[in-house]
Amino acid sequence: MKTYRKREFPVADIRRFLEPGPVVLVSSAYRGERNIMTMGWHMVMEFVPSLIACLISSGNHSYGLISRSKECVINVPTIELAPIVAKIGNCSGAEVDKFAAFKLTAVAAEAVQAPLIAQCYANLECKLVDGHLRDKYNVFIFEVVKAHAAVAPKYPKTIHYYGGGMFMVAGRTLNLRRYFRPGML
Amino acid sequence: MKTYRKREFPVADIRRFLEPGPVVLVSSAYRGERNIMTMGWHMVMEFVPSLIACLISSGNHSYGLISRSKECVINVPTIELAPIVAKIGNCSGAEVDKFAAFKLTAVAAEAVQAPLIAQCYANLECKLVDGHLRDKYNVFIFEVVKAHAAVAPKYPKTIHYYGGGMFMVAGRTLNLRRYFRPGML
Repeated sequence: MKTYRKREFPVADIRRFLEPGPVVLVSSAYRGERNIMTMGWHMVMEFVPSLIACLISSGNHSYGLISRSKECVINVPTIELAPIVAKIGNCSGAEVDKFAAFKLTAVAAEAVQAPLIAQCYANLECKLVDGHLRDKYNVFIFEVVKAHAAVAPKYPKTIHYYGGGMFMVAGRTLNLRRYFRPGML
Repeated sequence: MKTYRKREFPVADIRRFLEPGPVVLVSSAYRGERNIMTMGWHMVMEFVPSLIACLISSGNHSYGLISRSKECVINVPTIELAPIVAKIGNCSGAEVDKFAAFKLTAVAAEAVQAPLIAQCYANLECKLVDGHLRDKYNVFIFEVVKAHAAVAPKYPKTIHYYGGGMFMVAGRTLNLRRYFRPGML
């Protein structure tokens, strides 16, 4: 499977990858155990610090690993990985080593213990900064402390979930810069 | 401009409209004043009750209207409205009546005072259920109490923001149901 050649990316600008709403793969690790989950419920919250809110249900095996390690990596997959993204969301890390089962390459992160997934377009290293919503809402607020993004293509073919097994694939781009005030760009 | 013919839609299923990550138009009203803002930072949080988290910066004129009324409508626009979505995000309700300026049709909602936008594909009537994150993060947690959605097309051409005036238009659909366990559909 294709791996993306990447460079470091400014954490303040990672809205570019998450704001269009792609399904992401969340990798985590704790004391020698690692896992990957598919996640669709996330939201950019701030540029500086670079904050993201995510919903990770307590029924997921990753919930325990992330709660204990207080870290994760949010990996942005593209269309080539679509069947794997669906399959990862339909099995449990309690039973399967998903890196091995789906032939994904774990690459060491710089700031967290959780591994990057080499086959994903972007990798966002995250540290938990606010866990007080976890028990009530299953919501974790992370700070992106390090980001890596592919050099090309500029606009990746991300996949977006409608529910019911149906996805949308990122389509054409639309430049509306002419309608923006300079301070809004 | 085209208005969509709609029917009531189950609030537990509105993830279908928001989870793919479209830019939305948030309409609000308080004591005879009304406004519309463009919003990109939102997240589905729960099916039942139907919860959504949104980030509405305190710099927005709508922040005050929504804080006081504790209500809003989240309207999902499609590609036909793209220039208007950008323009709405680049002017202030303190200076402009956006319904009049952009020739949008305000339709009375059923459960909230804020108006629906007739030209949008879906309209989600929302009531604030948890405001405790507002002061720290500008985050509002709403319950969708009533939803209206277009009858056709089944998969709307929503627009998704990359930042810098660049948008992505919803592309083709991808059916991956065959990889899902029945309980996950």
